[in-house]
Amino acid sequence: MNREQYIIGVDLGGTNLSVGAMPLDGSREIGLRTLPTRADLGADAVSDRIAAMIESVVIALNSETGAGRDAILGVGIGSPGPLDRERGVVIFTPNLGWRDYPLRDEIATRVNMRATLDNDANCATFGEFWRGAARGGRDVIGMTLGTGIGGGLVLDGRLYHGVSDAAGEIGHTSIESNGRRCKCGNYGCLEAYCSGPAIAERAREALESDPSPTIDTLVDGDLSRLTAHIVYEAARRGDTVAREVVRDTARFLGTGLSNLINIFNPDTVVLAGGVTQAGEALMLPLQAEVKRRAFKTAVDSCRIVLGSLPMSAGVVGAVATFKERVLGSL
Amino acid sequence: MNREQYIIGVDLGGTNLSVGAMPLDGSREIGLRTLPTRADLGADAVSDRIAAMIESVVIALNSETGAGRDAILGVGIGSPGPLDRERGVVIFTPNLGWRDYPLRDEIATRVNMRATLDNDANCATFGEFWRGAARGGRDVIGMTLGTGIGGGLVLDGRLYHGVSDAAGEIGHTSIESNGRRCKCGNYGCLEAYCSGPAIAERAREALESDPSPTIDTLVDGDLSRLTAHIVYEAARRGDTVAREVVRDTARFLGTGLSNLINIFNPDTVVLAGGVTQAGEALMLPLQAEVKRRAFKTAVDSCRIVLGSLPMSAGVVGAVATFKERVLGSL
Repeated sequence: MNREQYIIGVDLGGTNLSVGAMPLDGSREIGLRTLPTRADLGADAVSDRIAAMIESVVIALNSETGAGRDAILGVGIGSPGPLDRERGVVIFTPNLGWRDYPLRDEIATRVNMRATLDNDANCATFGEFWRGAARGGRDVIGMTLGTGIGGGLVLDGRLYHGVSDAAGEIGHTSIESNGRRCKCGNYGCLEAYCSGPAIAERAREALESDPSPTIDTLVDGDLSRLTAHIVYEAARRGDTVAREVVRDTARFLGTGLSNLINIFNPDTVVLAGGVTQAGEALMLPLQAEVKRRAFKTAVDSCRIVLGSLPMSAGVVGAVATFKERVLGSL
Repeated sequence: MNREQYIIGVDLGGTNLSVGAMPLDGSREIGLRTLPTRADLGADAVSDRIAAMIESVVIALNSETGAGRDAILGVGIGSPGPLDRERGVVIFTPNLGWRDYPLRDEIATRVNMRATLDNDANCATFGEFWRGAARGGRDVIGMTLGTGIGGGLVLDGRLYHGVSDAAGEIGHTSIESNGRRCKCGNYGCLEAYCSGPAIAERAREALESDPSPTIDTLVDGDLSRLTAHIVYEAARRGDTVAREVVRDTARFLGTGLSNLINIFNPDTVVLAGGVTQAGEALMLPLQAEVKRRAFKTAVDSCRIVLGSLPMSAGVVGAVATFKERVLGSL
């Protein structure tokens, strides 16, 4: 009997929760759905919501493919960290307010399926590696630039976790040893320059000495409403302050990426998240900065690409981590 | 017949050339010898010198253990890079002045043994991992701080090379995006602050506004003779300028190491090279700086140690890379 098998992926974020199913070969996404996480309800209530979404994906899978529950190998979960993969425990998540929560087993018990747990940024990178823009790579650095900056490392074709599952914090590498204070306590972190809020903050500072009517109009005269998205819109309209902020973002990010390229000599760097929506206005000066800074051998063998799974990299990667962990390889 | 087998290791440096043999279990070093490289004689002459040293190690091995040539599996070679491991070719070495030199096969032909080629900084790290201070680790970052700063990465127990054998250039990660110009062309590299010559240079700059009789005496009034070693001696004698230079070195190095610890979550960082001879005067403020900057989870699971094979890490590691490459594991 030739019966296809499936894995369910869960991408748990501070704001949204996405769940979907994929066949083992990752050829398609089935029943993908997204709901607000509602972290305010507490950890057990969020686990209930995840379990309910999994059950609805099971139904969607059945109606779309005819596959029953016994065709599902289990559930891969991606969650913010730090976490302990071996024990399946989320150690601490500022965004969700959890401490030492045994998320993996809470989900496994509720849906009566085997489950695995991994870091959300790892999953997003692994998803792009398996089925997205980093496909065909072997040494891949993934970076999600949004409210924060997350990172994932695929080295020699496998997710790299470090000795206590805390590896990949590339948003918290300092590019100015006495630079901006970062929320993590360090100084000059990439995240303190290139996250969405940091871009807005740098723009606000630039506007103090150099006001911009364009931006003023976009925020109705209230600079507290300024976001990276609005900075990008102003840059598109030709605003010089906004353009300079975007170019600076490319310079800072270029310094950080050059460091990673000199360290890892990767074949692929894949960038995702809202900050990348500036498109070529960011990517062209970024590539120039990397070329100016990193070793030629390393730059020549590395492509820098935008993620191609903006809505589902986390879910696809959660499926992939389950598959690699349970079946031994992708 | 229970006959022990051996591997010969070669550590080729810009200044010195070391060769020695080890049994497969790495339990001891046999016939270790060091001679000047004499790069001025040209690549083929250096290959001749290496081959002659290998032959003399073969003789020493025989007289010490009775083992004949047939008990030797081959030769592992560590060389400055960039290089191509697959083809066994040194692509370019500023220190030796070589371009596209097929070092591996030149040696293999001369001594009629199988040979492998790897990067010298990788070998030094792998040596400390196999038989030195990083023993027992799984995720190890090695850093050699001397005239330049070299790096090696052991991840999940294996040497990590990157897609074109150029990984591990941690000396060329920028900690000040607009900082000191580095010889590599980048700005603010760790090497531009913490190599031996960079330490001397920073001391000279500090002395311009703040002269030191202690240092003046040590260099006989000629600041062009100042070295990191002399800065350390002055610091030991209580000189305030020298002490500040050492503390600054710890701060710069601490920024760079914190970045690596946040990226890799390693269990071990092993430091070697002349710059580490400052001992506790460097290590104590370095550890404090790392604690201040890097994530607690990552800091708590990482030991920072000094290398324990100062004379032979490169040779031991060259043996180890041959063993891993030819036999499949250490």
